[in-house]
Amino acid sequence: MAQKPSIPKGTRDFTPSEVVKRNYIFDIIKKNFQTFGFQPIETPSFENSDTLMGKYGDEGDRLIFKILNSGDFLRSFNENLIKTIKLSLYHLRIYLNGTVKEEMNSYGLNFVKVLPEILRKDKQIKFDESVIDLNNLANDLWNKIEVFVNKEDWKEVLINGVDEDKSLTNLSIGIFGEFYFEMGTKYLGSHISEKALRYDLTVPFARYVVMHQNEIDFPFKRYQIQPVWRADRPQKGRFREFYQCDADVVGSNSLLQEVEFVQLYDAVFSALKLEGVTIKLNNRKILAGIAEVIGAKNNLIDFTVALDKLDKIGEEGVKKEMLEKGISEASIEKAAPLFSLSGTNNDQLNALEKLLAVSEEGSKGVQELRFIIDAVSDIGLSTAQLAIDVTLARGLNYYTGAIFEVAAPKSVQMGSIGGGGRYDDLTGIFGLKDVSGVGISFGLDRIYLVLEELDLFPEAIDQSLQVLFMNYGEAEAFQALKLVTLFRKNGVKADLYPDSATNQKQENKQFKFATNKNVPYIVIIREDELKSATFTVKNINENTQETYSLDKAEEFLKNL
Amino acid sequence: MAQKPSIPKGTRDFTPSEVVKRNYIFDIIKKNFQTFGFQPIETPSFENSDTLMGKYGDEGDRLIFKILNSGDFLRSFNENLIKTIKLSLYHLRIYLNGTVKEEMNSYGLNFVKVLPEILRKDKQIKFDESVIDLNNLANDLWNKIEVFVNKEDWKEVLINGVDEDKSLTNLSIGIFGEFYFEMGTKYLGSHISEKALRYDLTVPFARYVVMHQNEIDFPFKRYQIQPVWRADRPQKGRFREFYQCDADVVGSNSLLQEVEFVQLYDAVFSALKLEGVTIKLNNRKILAGIAEVIGAKNNLIDFTVALDKLDKIGEEGVKKEMLEKGISEASIEKAAPLFSLSGTNNDQLNALEKLLAVSEEGSKGVQELRFIIDAVSDIGLSTAQLAIDVTLARGLNYYTGAIFEVAAPKSVQMGSIGGGGRYDDLTGIFGLKDVSGVGISFGLDRIYLVLEELDLFPEAIDQSLQVLFMNYGEAEAFQALKLVTLFRKNGVKADLYPDSATNQKQENKQFKFATNKNVPYIVIIREDELKSATFTVKNINENTQETYSLDKAEEFLKNL
Repeated sequence: MAQKPSIPKGTRDFTPSEVVKRNYIFDIIKKNFQTFGFQPIETPSFENSDTLMGKYGDEGDRLIFKILNSGDFLRSFNENLIKTIKLSLYHLRIYLNGTVKEEMNSYGLNFVKVLPEILRKDKQIKFDESVIDLNNLANDLWNKIEVFVNKEDWKEVLINGVDEDKSLTNLSIGIFGEFYFEMGTKYLGSHISEKALRYDLTVPFARYVVMHQNEIDFPFKRYQIQPVWRADRPQKGRFREFYQCDADVVGSNSLLQEVEFVQLYDAVFSALKLEGVTIKLNNRKILAGIAEVIGAKNNLIDFTVALDKLDKIGEEGVKKEMLEKGISEASIEKAAPLFSLSGTNNDQLNALEKLLAVSEEGSKGVQELRFIIDAVSDIGLSTAQLAIDVTLARGLNYYTGAIFEVAAPKSVQMGSIGGGGRYDDLTGIFGLKDVSGVGISFGLDRIYLVLEELDLFPEAIDQSLQVLFMNYGEAEAFQALKLVTLFRKNGVKADLYPDSATNQKQENKQFKFATNKNVPYIVIIREDELKSATFTVKNINENTQETYSLDKAEEFLKNL
Repeated sequence: MAQKPSIPKGTRDFTPSEVVKRNYIFDIIKKNFQTFGFQPIETPSFENSDTLMGKYGDEGDRLIFKILNSGDFLRSFNENLIKTIKLSLYHLRIYLNGTVKEEMNSYGLNFVKVLPEILRKDKQIKFDESVIDLNNLANDLWNKIEVFVNKEDWKEVLINGVDEDKSLTNLSIGIFGEFYFEMGTKYLGSHISEKALRYDLTVPFARYVVMHQNEIDFPFKRYQIQPVWRADRPQKGRFREFYQCDADVVGSNSLLQEVEFVQLYDAVFSALKLEGVTIKLNNRKILAGIAEVIGAKNNLIDFTVALDKLDKIGEEGVKKEMLEKGISEASIEKAAPLFSLSGTNNDQLNALEKLLAVSEEGSKGVQELRFIIDAVSDIGLSTAQLAIDVTLARGLNYYTGAIFEVAAPKSVQMGSIGGGGRYDDLTGIFGLKDVSGVGISFGLDRIYLVLEELDLFPEAIDQSLQVLFMNYGEAEAFQALKLVTLFRKNGVKADLYPDSATNQKQENKQFKFATNKNVPYIVIIREDELKSATFTVKNINENTQETYSLDKAEEFLKNL
């Protein structure tokens, strides 16, 4: 029976109309990335696991899609493992027959130390050490064997087994089973998977910068638009495969970059005709300064996580959460001005300056924020608003300076449609120190929904065909194909219906095809037109019809 | 210690220059796909495994990248498995204590039948039946248990174990280990991986057509440009991740489609300025006809595989291989005309017509080929050659009519840079019968190499910046940023060097940055220019310099 096809949950097919609309957004973002001097790079869809693991916290690690090694890797691993266990038991038996129980521990220590060497020398056993750490294996194995063999009846079998080889094999299989059972997903996973799908574009970018540092002229402005994959629980608006659109600069500490990113957001959203977005701006140094000033320096994360919820749970809610997290009443009292920040960006800057005067870090943050605000308001934005938002935290652990977030126009209910910030040590994890980075990201899926909701996609954006030629027989189709060829050479999206209409029903089918596709022009070449070397054009929108002689085809094209 | 970063073998980072050149090719292909009336779709990077497995032959299955299930799936599987084994042994013990050895087989048959029901009712054991076939599991399990328990000493333990629960547990772990050991990669793989990375674009397209059949107006012309992944052994020019660029039509038998695909190849390669490609054309019906005529109908595949090697191993080599494959000397004798086909396409068609006159299928093939050749030569091609090549076989098992292949110009050593054909039953595997498809593919990586070798990429294609503004201090940079903003609004790729030059060395660094990036225009705003409201432009290519007043900026832009 044929399969009933489906796609994995959390993934999507994109229809022609969706692809065209998505590309419309991509193209505008790309064009602006380019005029702002960003260069495109692309990285592989999968990275070595150790490039990604440990970079996104435990939760992130869990959400990374791992790729199963190809080939029959597990069989070879299994065979080597069982041989290793048997070999280990063989040595253990010799030991057990010769000495006393109390020294089991020291035998274990020695075993763990010696086993990797024994394995390397053994001709029957071949582990791929680029994948398997033999020291870890020896350690894990000993833990299993020790527990297993300490069960008295097994030790008995090991020492006094009737058929030595048989009892060794049986014991080995038992331990092998325990090994698989206890080590579970994690142990097996790291042995059968060495690659993982990209989880974001930032870590691969950092990896790229370090690997290509000798060919890169810093400051390096790169953009990257590629899919990422996350094993999130699928839910409305959250997908397991989605595109990220990132622009970052590495290798410059200049605040001019921050100014440019505000301009870039404004340029892109203006080009998309999405007016009224708010670019929210904060600085981690300000958050750190506030925590310092109110005496909650050691609770910086708790403090900012709570503050970040001001929109959702209100002032009282935030204060309650802070109290629960152990921030003192006195501290919260001191933070009061934050809840009543109002007025222009300048008013807020002045209030913050006063509040943070005693904190060096906080003052630095205010100064940075002021530089960006001043520069942007001096040059002006096309359609976006720039607004200070001291509650903005985002990936606070990550950012060290500016923090950006873009809110959709108030008329649509939608979370942020973009965000970013500065992180002082982007490439340190891969060994390149002191490289500052700052970048922003566009949330494609949400921007798509906003444009759809506000009806901002250009009219007829998904029109796949401008002209459809009807097909009335071989000779007529042939004539049509010549015109189609000419039209296409002039960049017109033109097509010939492939099957001939020999009766009314078939003709209707062709018209229906054109109607379904919203084709604005239908060209008709019947026997009459063939004889008179003409073609008849129906303008569907205006409900008119005109006949051209073949040598006037270019004239028709000009007016298209 | 920091990691030394690397990428998985067979994958690539693409630098800005490479991305730009690749996009140049993609854009030209896309533009032509669109003028030819093709619509874009996109499918998820991973599909359900059963969508892909079994569609590409055993070799293909082996090369599909499988994705490890996320979460701790293995642990739950392991726990359920060991409980199941223990439960099974418990029942077996009851049976063994009550009856005789000879009926073990019938117990097994019954066990396999009953176990799934027992498992479904058990409250401790929960298998996800969408992933695990309980009938298969019961069967596999019994096979293991039977062998294991038939070892006399184990049966003894099972029946007379001192501590019943303990002996059951120990036995269970042993069987669990055997299970893992024997079932190996294949069994485990299907339990821990339900998704796999796309291997090509054709099977996902077929799946898409079936799933979306009610929204599609047939004939459906779609193009798709996305990466695919294959666990091939990496080697020069062969990658584990690469893009496919496919255009296909489904739902029309008209040979006009084949004509269009020839035109499409011509249009794309002409637009890429890659002149002199040869579009080779064959038809499976002709190959079948030849095999029929020479009496080698049952050796069609062997015959065509050998014939396909004519270029490489010559006439004698081909004949030798045919003999080895059991094709008779007489048959090979009859096939002789194939080796001396020459002259124009028409000459060859006439020769083939004669040779295949007695084969209905062969004659049909010649007729189809003639239709395409006639139509194309009537309309004419821009730069490509169309040539019959009866040795062309490609994916013969797959194609049922036309077979295409594009050869690069003779001046470059390169395999085919494109190929395709007609396949009569594209969507049958997913339950939609009688949908004919025909399509072609462009080999991006090879086209890239050919354009590189023939130096056909447009000059300055990878110029990332048209104008760089030098940075001589905060006020100067500010003035520059205003101009940069204006330039960018006019679509010019412009940038301001982010850090100020306060000495000669720093200024040189900025010039060097511009030189490395091949920036054609450098704009200088120093204190002088700031005072006089001007900016100075250095034209690097012409080695000239000119000063404009700020209000003449648009004039400079016009001449850019």
